[in-house]
Amino acid sequence: MDRREEIYQKALDLFTERGYDNTPLSLIAKALGLSKGGLFHYFESKEHLLYLLHEYAVARDMNPIINEAESIQDPEDRTRFFLKRYTELLARKPYVRVLIHEVGRLDPHHQKAITKVWRRAFDLVRNAIGEMEAAGKAKPLDITFAAFALIGMCSWLFYWFDYSRPDSAANVSETFAEIFFKGIGMR
Amino acid sequence: MDRREEIYQKALDLFTERGYDNTPLSLIAKALGLSKGGLFHYFESKEHLLYLLHEYAVARDMNPIINEAESIQDPEDRTRFFLKRYTELLARKPYVRVLIHEVGRLDPHHQKAITKVWRRAFDLVRNAIGEMEAAGKAKPLDITFAAFALIGMCSWLFYWFDYSRPDSAANVSETFAEIFFKGIGMR
Repeated sequence: MDRREEIYQKALDLFTERGYDNTPLSLIAKALGLSKGGLFHYFESKEHLLYLLHEYAVARDMNPIINEAESIQDPEDRTRFFLKRYTELLARKPYVRVLIHEVGRLDPHHQKAITKVWRRAFDLVRNAIGEMEAAGKAKPLDITFAAFALIGMCSWLFYWFDYSRPDSAANVSETFAEIFFKGIGMR
Repeated sequence: MDRREEIYQKALDLFTERGYDNTPLSLIAKALGLSKGGLFHYFESKEHLLYLLHEYAVARDMNPIINEAESIQDPEDRTRFFLKRYTELLARKPYVRVLIHEVGRLDPHHQKAITKVWRRAFDLVRNAIGEMEAAGKAKPLDITFAAFALIGMCSWLFYWFDYSRPDSAANVSETFAEIFFKGIGMR
């Protein structure tokens, strides 16, 4: 792990544990044995750090899920894969909670870059539902709102999930998959 | 509208428009033609104001939905009523977004009081699913995760909904109801 990654990990841990507002940069510096000035070698401001953490988590956690899902041809399998992996990501990496919750703190151009990633995940799900519908496998429904139903039931997890029991994530994603696929009219 | 209600409305409007962090009490005072000292006649701090706004919205918007739902005997009708009214509340009153999103800013004892209301809504849905299952109308599933699926798909709305088109709320809640009830195995 290089120094930059070490800084990101420590910042994510502290934000997750104490909350974004309750974690001043001076505390992050102290936990890393750095001066606050030393931190500014790596980023310009707390907002900039938050953006770099988003970028880091997108590259490490989110893009691999979207990329692998996109390579799956069957739309049902593709959606199942995304639902399962995304739910388990949220359950197993509590820091995702802080990132999603605080996305509104980013400067507009930073926010736009992150929203693009979310848009890609949304399009993946929405297109897959459209393909299932076109193939007569799902019943006709509003595919935009159906995609938000899936992403919403998964994403809301961070408001209620008991992070001390990460293994229940598999049961959560199974229940969600069962409701969603039956709900859109699949077998 | 009494003076206190006028203050709550103005604070909700400003928090919704500008965000909680970007709205200092001095700005709320100015918008009301009051001194900042004058505001402290009504509450003690910004956190206290946020709590009073939660209480106000719970009493006016959320409790009536839960109360009316609880009076409905049939568990499917009860759940449908809750899903529809809760989704439409989120879509038609954008300030609910700020309240839910910033609930973590409340002091622990204030947060506990608000969490109680959410717990009541959750129990309402979870119990209704349990009743449908016991009557053999819904298939066996994890009723806790199923209840969170419903509440999650509705609640997530505030992350994506286009508040300039409040009338689409009815279509959103219809799509969600269709997916959810079919999803748990109802007709």
